[in-house]
Amino acid sequence: MTGERDDIHEMQARIAESFARQGLMGRLGAELASVRPGEVSIRLPFSGGVSQQHGYFHAGAIASVADSAAGYAGLSLAPAGMTALAVEFKINLLRPGVGDAVVARGSVLRQGRQLSVCQASVWIEEGGELTKQCAQLQQTLMILPADEGRPAG
Amino acid sequence: MTGERDDIHEMQARIAESFARQGLMGRLGAELASVRPGEVSIRLPFSGGVSQQHGYFHAGAIASVADSAAGYAGLSLAPAGMTALAVEFKINLLRPGVGDAVVARGSVLRQGRQLSVCQASVWIEEGGELTKQCAQLQQTLMILPADEGRPAG
Amino acid sequence: MTGERDDIHEMQARIAESFARQGLMGRLGAELASVRPGEVSIRLPFSGGVSQQHGYFHAGAIASVADSAAGYAGLSLAPAGMTALAVEFKINLLRPGVGDAVVARGSVLRQGRQLSVCQASVWIEEGGELTKQCAQLQQTLMILPADEGRPAG
Amino acid sequence: MTGERDDIHEMQARIAESFARQGLMGRLGAELASVRPGEVSIRLPFSGGVSQQHGYFHAGAIASVADSAAGYAGLSLAPAGMTALAVEFKINLLRPGVGDAVVARGSVLRQGRQLSVCQASVWIEEGGELTKQCAQLQQTLMILPADEGRPAG
Repeated sequence: MTGERDDIHEMQARIAESFARQGLMGRLGAELASVRPGEVSIRLPFSGGVSQQHGYFHAGAIASVADSAAGYAGLSLAPAGMTALAVEFKINLLRPGVGDAVVARGSVLRQGRQLSVCQASVWIEEGGELTKQCAQLQQTLMILPADEGRPAG
Repeated sequence: MTGERDDIHEMQARIAESFARQGLMGRLGAELASVRPGEVSIRLPFSGGVSQQHGYFHAGAIASVADSAAGYAGLSLAPAGMTALAVEFKINLLRPGVGDAVVARGSVLRQGRQLSVCQASVWIEEGGELTKQCAQLQQTLMILPADEGRPAG
Repeated sequence: MTGERDDIHEMQARIAESFARQGLMGRLGAELASVRPGEVSIRLPFSGGVSQQHGYFHAGAIASVADSAAGYAGLSLAPAGMTALAVEFKINLLRPGVGDAVVARGSVLRQGRQLSVCQASVWIEEGGELTKQCAQLQQTLMILPADEGRPAG
Repeated sequence: MTGERDDIHEMQARIAESFARQGLMGRLGAELASVRPGEVSIRLPFSGGVSQQHGYFHAGAIASVADSAAGYAGLSLAPAGMTALAVEFKINLLRPGVGDAVVARGSVLRQGRQLSVCQASVWIEEGGELTKQCAQLQQTLMILPADEGRPAG
């Protein structure tokens, strides 16, 4: 059991370290909210720097945290020494992104050796509560050795 | 002819003004590169603030400018007083985003009264030249009166 | 309560009647398996007429029943007199479609007045049991009066 | 030059043979219309067996020929002995599919060793002419040895 807990801590540290190197997440003000095997959440507080022309969350900002949350969910199930790159994703914007923050919850639909299929649901946070889902993302992820770090395609 | 040229200038001014209000574009450092009826380009220079963990352009940053370029291409064909909101989009990352900048070129596949289908191809810029395509986006856009500013769905 | 049950029966009859008019479903050998408010399942037994080159279920056959199941899930929540048309969908094939049948389970992620976002998970049936998920679909649906019967876009 | 022409004939024969084994294409009444390196067209005449509830082409029938056309376009650039499987695709229905036939034209956006990104545009045929585009598909394809014949993911 200790071994398993150590493995989880090691994986969490690996993902936190990778997240810290994603300059885009820092620039947007996104925070890694939780990391569990197969489930990663990223929180993005609202600011002028993530808005579109009407003052809502920009679809691109929502897609960015959803893509990262789904990708890290996939990576959390891969062995150490691997990296994950998005091959493609599709996102539906379900309602305008209006709130204090959005939280993207990534999960894994199908884990494969080379390709994984992941999802993220994005929720609106108001007054400290997740109130409504505002987006849903479906993603294909390539899992490959970190020293390759690029699609083999 | 003067009337048509005036209309184009008015449309270009409208889109420039809307782009300036997209806080995300400013935060990422994106620039409106060209606006013609049905074709809008956005350029995103590389910086630490748009990167992923390996120092490439983050898929979310690429998707953000592609989504905006496609959306403004769609809006450029709509009458004054309308706005455009992305209902959904899908993007394929064709190769790692490594270069001085990326340029997203939005275009319109099918213009409708309420829904338009738009595309964006994203190109890598190196040494002032567009060298290779790195992403392709396909988007459904809702066109609605600007004072509604939200999906009627 | 009787009124509600009557409404459900009326809705089920409406969807069964519409399904019977989908010539493609008959041609493929697909059956309407269950209809509840917001949840519709379609079963497709394997046959040579739904196969691809290796003798598995063709992605197009899987997509066809997934698209119909998601669309009818969306329609099941709309008032009588309305119809549903797919605006777009995206499907991930999670593993080869090998089995006695596939069952597509449609559901509704976000019900809107004009646009709904629906999903379908497709499962492999072997020996009378649903064993593994083989596909996941995400769809945008337009809800409109049946006498229009075509996208207003 | 003869060698190149022989290679093309061999590739065309390979694809025609694979198409003939896709039972779904025969069941729908689809025909392989043209095969060139990187470009494959499939024609689907209208019939009751490819319709939806209003008597138009079913989105699933359109998606089926678009998926096959895109997949064979990708396969046409791969060496002999390889096969192609769709990992995922996304399709926008641009207008109702009403006409004598639809023609899906597959092409290749990005050819990779393991993954290719392909597209298909689907056109309405009326009176022997292709009149309007009715759908656009974007697809991720896995290229693998034919004796594996299944996603390695």
